[in-house]
Amino acid sequence: MQILPKALTDLVEELGKLPGVGPRTAERYAYYLLRAEPRIATKLAASVSSLHAGVDYCRKTFALVEKGQELSPLYTDPARNKKLIAVVEEPLDVVALERTGQFKGTYHVLGGAISPIDGIGPEQLHIAELLERIDEDGVEEIILAMNASVEGESTALYLQRQIGDRDVRVTRLARGLPVGVDLEYADQITLGHALEGRQKL
Amino acid sequence: MQILPKALTDLVEELGKLPGVGPRTAERYAYYLLRAEPRIATKLAASVSSLHAGVDYCRKTFALVEKGQELSPLYTDPARNKKLIAVVEEPLDVVALERTGQFKGTYHVLGGAISPIDGIGPEQLHIAELLERIDEDGVEEIILAMNASVEGESTALYLQRQIGDRDVRVTRLARGLPVGVDLEYADQITLGHALEGRQKL
Repeated sequence: MQILPKALTDLVEELGKLPGVGPRTAERYAYYLLRAEPRIATKLAASVSSLHAGVDYCRKTFALVEKGQELSPLYTDPARNKKLIAVVEEPLDVVALERTGQFKGTYHVLGGAISPIDGIGPEQLHIAELLERIDEDGVEEIILAMNASVEGESTALYLQRQIGDRDVRVTRLARGLPVGVDLEYADQITLGHALEGRQKL
Repeated sequence: MQILPKALTDLVEELGKLPGVGPRTAERYAYYLLRAEPRIATKLAASVSSLHAGVDYCRKTFALVEKGQELSPLYTDPARNKKLIAVVEEPLDVVALERTGQFKGTYHVLGGAISPIDGIGPEQLHIAELLERIDEDGVEEIILAMNASVEGESTALYLQRQIGDRDVRVTRLARGLPVGVDLEYADQITLGHALEGRQKL
């Protein structure tokens, strides 16, 4: 017997496809939408349907841009230093770095990290385009801002080799203790990185 | 400067209205929908928009039913005992009880719990309809299956008083140790309930 109406179970199924959302969470979301004013659901449905039509990728940096826009304002802005590139895995990493308010260079979104298990090789990432940019824009520094994961590390290593003997400084984000963490709770690898990268006061 | 396209930030805002979803989670959901095949977003949008039009409330039990259906199949099914009613707060509680496979009575959904802080008084709940059912269906037992919260307890107490001296057995769900919990981690109130409600082996 169908206990819940089909409209609700259909929605639970679709919401359950979101990352990290199990059936119970999907039920809570769906029931919230049912209980809330109908315009909440209407607006959500409209936003979901217009998502793909409203988003494009920057031709140069592969960051997300408005549909029809060729280049990201973070690239075209004359205040941004085109000779400094932060290389990130995903478009949302750009948002994370922008939140620091400390980076005035430009970005390059690889579109993922090298991961043989997931079948992602270097040719699926925007690596060739990065090398082109290095040559075209006379880039002086590349900051490898990949995730601190095995895939991120491998991608960084691969990029470093590809950049080869080009006259460009290659750096990567510091590894160490995150803010607010007690030494006794830090894992040994993090603590190892923190020791290795210790700085003179 | 707008870092992300408007279509994406709009969606993040709408997703952020779901219960327990903060901006980071909403961003992850939105980005997942952007990366996934467009038909995933299309199906989700369709399910969200058809939610309200596809759901109705049972006139007798206030459980969720298909649009246009007057009575819940959990009520009309002749195999269900109409003289036994489990009173729950929300429609999803029906699903939880059905999952046990142990209940063969009918349900009555109150539509919430008494909570003066949230401005929810007894008159906003389907209490009058429950009392009617008790008289009409010749109910023999009412199981108060409210949440184990202050609001649930108050609602149970209120219902008990309203049922008054009607010739009906009023019970409530057992309080005690949930499955898989170590005694040392159980909170004192739960352990107190477990002691109080101890059963002869």
